[in-house]
Amino acid sequence: MKLYSYYRSSAAYRVRIALNYKRLEYETIPISLIDKEQFSLVFLQINPQARVPVLEDNGLIITQSMAILEYLEEKYPDFPLLPTSLEKRTLAREMANIIACDIHPLNNLSVLHFLKTHFDLSEEKKFMWYHHWIREGFNAIEHRLAGKTHFTVDNSPTFADVCLIPQVYNALRFSFDMSPYPKIQAIYDAANHFDYFIKAKPENQVERK
Amino acid sequence: MKLYSYYRSSAAYRVRIALNYKRLEYETIPISLIDKEQFSLVFLQINPQARVPVLEDNGLIITQSMAILEYLEEKYPDFPLLPTSLEKRTLAREMANIIACDIHPLNNLSVLHFLKTHFDLSEEKKFMWYHHWIREGFNAIEHRLAGKTHFTVDNSPTFADVCLIPQVYNALRFSFDMSPYPKIQAIYDAANHFDYFIKAKPENQVERK
Repeated sequence: MKLYSYYRSSAAYRVRIALNYKRLEYETIPISLIDKEQFSLVFLQINPQARVPVLEDNGLIITQSMAILEYLEEKYPDFPLLPTSLEKRTLAREMANIIACDIHPLNNLSVLHFLKTHFDLSEEKKFMWYHHWIREGFNAIEHRLAGKTHFTVDNSPTFADVCLIPQVYNALRFSFDMSPYPKIQAIYDAANHFDYFIKAKPENQVERK
Repeated sequence: MKLYSYYRSSAAYRVRIALNYKRLEYETIPISLIDKEQFSLVFLQINPQARVPVLEDNGLIITQSMAILEYLEEKYPDFPLLPTSLEKRTLAREMANIIACDIHPLNNLSVLHFLKTHFDLSEEKKFMWYHHWIREGFNAIEHRLAGKTHFTVDNSPTFADVCLIPQVYNALRFSFDMSPYPKIQAIYDAANHFDYFIKAKPENQVERK
């Protein structure tokens, strides 16, 4: 299995966690977004959308991190990242989607770049924009957490944790104040004791630059 | 089943298509986003994130349109909206997520409102912003369509069509030039001959205002 990845891409970070948790071996192909390697002719052949992550498994090329998570879950059901009860599966997907649809798309590099180019984005406004979408999403997630400390939905990680941990990582990197979110913070702190989360962290990717 | 819906919400439109296709009866509870009914105390009890759609099924409250689609698929597998082959299921989810993660989150009402308030968004720039994200996503989708005319992935609709039709509807409403996307346009035109798509259209919702 090959993962086209960028160390700081939080969508790639999700997939790294899932692959690690499922004990699946993979080779990392680094695509440096800062060096615009996603626009190279070679990579555009793989993903014309010029985005990471891309997973290649037995010749099948899969884009979109949420589609990759569902694929891995169906193809490699051991070490599941979705609970067995439909109610909990649904809650895991809801929380994952609050991040994947309502926070991350607004804050990714291509959007910040577009705002900078066309909307005269100051540093101050960049932070206001970035924090606003995290706050909206984290309010919704914090509200739904039952006060468990280890994982968001169940006694083991789910799609929700797979998405939440990279999002908190980004929030901290952008100086977001986590103090109104003690439950999310506790989950983040606990997660970072597990090998499959640690190994997936941006600073533990060999290709980072 | 109850669907909290707004006639022009394209995320609610997705769920309406899925419910219709699966022949599931539901009651529509209109939440007028333009009148800010999503911020009413009653609705915030149902969804503190102040967003539609919300599906209520046997007391279970589900937010996030993509989580609702997966829930419906698992709970009511008749008239499936995911193909049986894993490869096609994955492709359906990829295309659905290009829309749900890379286009729609950038173009929804709350984002346009935020840009208007804090970034001095002119009408001209609003269209530039809106069209940019549709173009990026539609380029990726058009490229992946095999040139079939009826549906995106299979011989029957999938999550991809459920997301694509409302997105094209919005594109047309915002005067987006569809001429570079003949395959997407053909799928849109064909879809609007089917009852389950027609019944879900914004102009066919009783509560529209």
